[in-house]
Amino acid sequence: MRESRPVTLITVARQAGVSKTTASDALTGTGRVSPATRDRVMQTATMLGYVPNSSARHLRRAVTGTIGLHLPEVLTRSDYYMRFVFGAVDQAAAHGYDLTLITSGHGSVRPRLPRVDGIVLGDPLGGDAAVEHLIGSELPIVTCERFPGRDVLDGVVRSEHDAALRVLLDHLHDAGARRPALVVSSGESDWAADLGRGYREWCREHRVEPRIRTITFGSGTEAAAPAAADLLSAHPDTDALVCGPDGAAAAALPVIRAAGREAGRDLLLASCVDSPAMAEADPPITAIDLRPREAGARCAELLFEVLNGSAPPGTERIHPIALVPRASTQGTH
Amino acid sequence: MRESRPVTLITVARQAGVSKTTASDALTGTGRVSPATRDRVMQTATMLGYVPNSSARHLRRAVTGTIGLHLPEVLTRSDYYMRFVFGAVDQAAAHGYDLTLITSGHGSVRPRLPRVDGIVLGDPLGGDAAVEHLIGSELPIVTCERFPGRDVLDGVVRSEHDAALRVLLDHLHDAGARRPALVVSSGESDWAADLGRGYREWCREHRVEPRIRTITFGSGTEAAAPAAADLLSAHPDTDALVCGPDGAAAAALPVIRAAGREAGRDLLLASCVDSPAMAEADPPITAIDLRPREAGARCAELLFEVLNGSAPPGTERIHPIALVPRASTQGTH
Repeated sequence: MRESRPVTLITVARQAGVSKTTASDALTGTGRVSPATRDRVMQTATMLGYVPNSSARHLRRAVTGTIGLHLPEVLTRSDYYMRFVFGAVDQAAAHGYDLTLITSGHGSVRPRLPRVDGIVLGDPLGGDAAVEHLIGSELPIVTCERFPGRDVLDGVVRSEHDAALRVLLDHLHDAGARRPALVVSSGESDWAADLGRGYREWCREHRVEPRIRTITFGSGTEAAAPAAADLLSAHPDTDALVCGPDGAAAAALPVIRAAGREAGRDLLLASCVDSPAMAEADPPITAIDLRPREAGARCAELLFEVLNGSAPPGTERIHPIALVPRASTQGTH
Repeated sequence: MRESRPVTLITVARQAGVSKTTASDALTGTGRVSPATRDRVMQTATMLGYVPNSSARHLRRAVTGTIGLHLPEVLTRSDYYMRFVFGAVDQAAAHGYDLTLITSGHGSVRPRLPRVDGIVLGDPLGGDAAVEHLIGSELPIVTCERFPGRDVLDGVVRSEHDAALRVLLDHLHDAGARRPALVVSSGESDWAADLGRGYREWCREHRVEPRIRTITFGSGTEAAAPAAADLLSAHPDTDALVCGPDGAAAAALPVIRAAGREAGRDLLLASCVDSPAMAEADPPITAIDLRPREAGARCAELLFEVLNGSAPPGTERIHPIALVPRASTQGTH
């Protein structure tokens, strides 16, 4: 949680005998400030117990011409994140900005801070030390999905994954499925927690016993196949399988065939993340289109609004997502 | 072409009365150098006519923890470049580095320089002012493909596209095609120039009249369809169509059908760039796999070797690429 104290940047600047701009530059390591001045400003800030708050951060000039983007490191092979990155790059370019992909520093507990005006955190995972470090930097931060267990930082772009999953489950129900099962990622991400919640609520309302298998977030599609196999063997009367992780539903197809089932006929199959792999699968797999390129663009756009002061701190934007029905949920009727 | 002059960094440092490290930091805008010292060093360097040469640039300490990547701006929707970027990001992360995607500054003639240790230029286009500006920065630079009209900069990772195209043309010949046509991008990129050269050479050796249509580099697949239509109408006896640009071969499929031809039967079809769109087309399209993720990784790897001095200036690495035959070049036999 952010703290706010009465000591302002102006107080620090006055006490150090510099302009507010110089004080800001000195504290953030930007601009052209001599080492002596920087040291004096930093000592003054420490002495006064100055903690930059959200609104003070917005007063800082944009000087690096670069925004940062951090993604869960395990996921750079995901089609979703590739598109997300290029959406954010497009927006950055439209503002004349570069975009720095912040990697997690590989084992160093405190990675150096990137030189950026602000940061987009894509799917920040609870307990990710690199994410905590970036949040501690006091740079303006917009997240894609909420940071689990935290208030909204400077801004959030999020989608209503629980509602979208309920639409998907209703679609399966309409196609005749009564006992849907779910393979989902562990709940360090807001997205996976949303899916688990939506599924459990739907099951409660429909008086259906939840059938759920959880795999590690970002463990890749190889973990999805055994989870699906386990579900189908533990609950042979399962009539629909919903896979959360990107690519998992396609990875489940061989498992479904091996269990003597036929996807789209006696077992409906759907994915919570659309991708070319879903469209080109045999049969093509019904999926929720998360519109990743647009999500990346909206996150960058909101960050620029935070930077220029036009979006108030804590701004929340809902990014619409939509079900794309395909042959895998056609059913027998 | 790079110039090398007798004035070295050490000469500048001595004359300015600072250490070599400080002189380097002052000239590159890195490290903690007071404005007065920086000005003195820069004046000294100008006075002496100092031009940093390749080896001197290698002496500079890596301080930003970030490498830069510049791509032709028009192409951020390309599957190839998405994969290329993530390959480079993987390598950067393995070295504990961030990666900054450098955008072209949108109309400003001299975009600000990004704060990076070195730069990878993916497909530098001849006449691209942003590329010239980055090269003028004297930062260590590795290119993917050569920069047209220039010697190798600090390093190059390139593929033998002309040779790969000749393998593809031989494959078409084996499948019965005698009059292959080519849709290719304009020659600002080394890649497109390579393809045009390979095609013309093959045609000369096989005593075949070249049938070629050139579309603007990065103009997208919408320019490919009219070019293909024009080729088929001007040369109705064309029996194979090879498309250079990413995605163009899939865009040509409706044109082929509209001309009353059948791809893979009476007209063979192939792409010089593989992608999921080629694999999922109907019929699946034979393509050259450029292995973009590996190419991005190798470029970043070579840049790190340049930075740590283990790769000599002008290092050239050949990145292998391979033909992936599919149904679109099966032919009738």
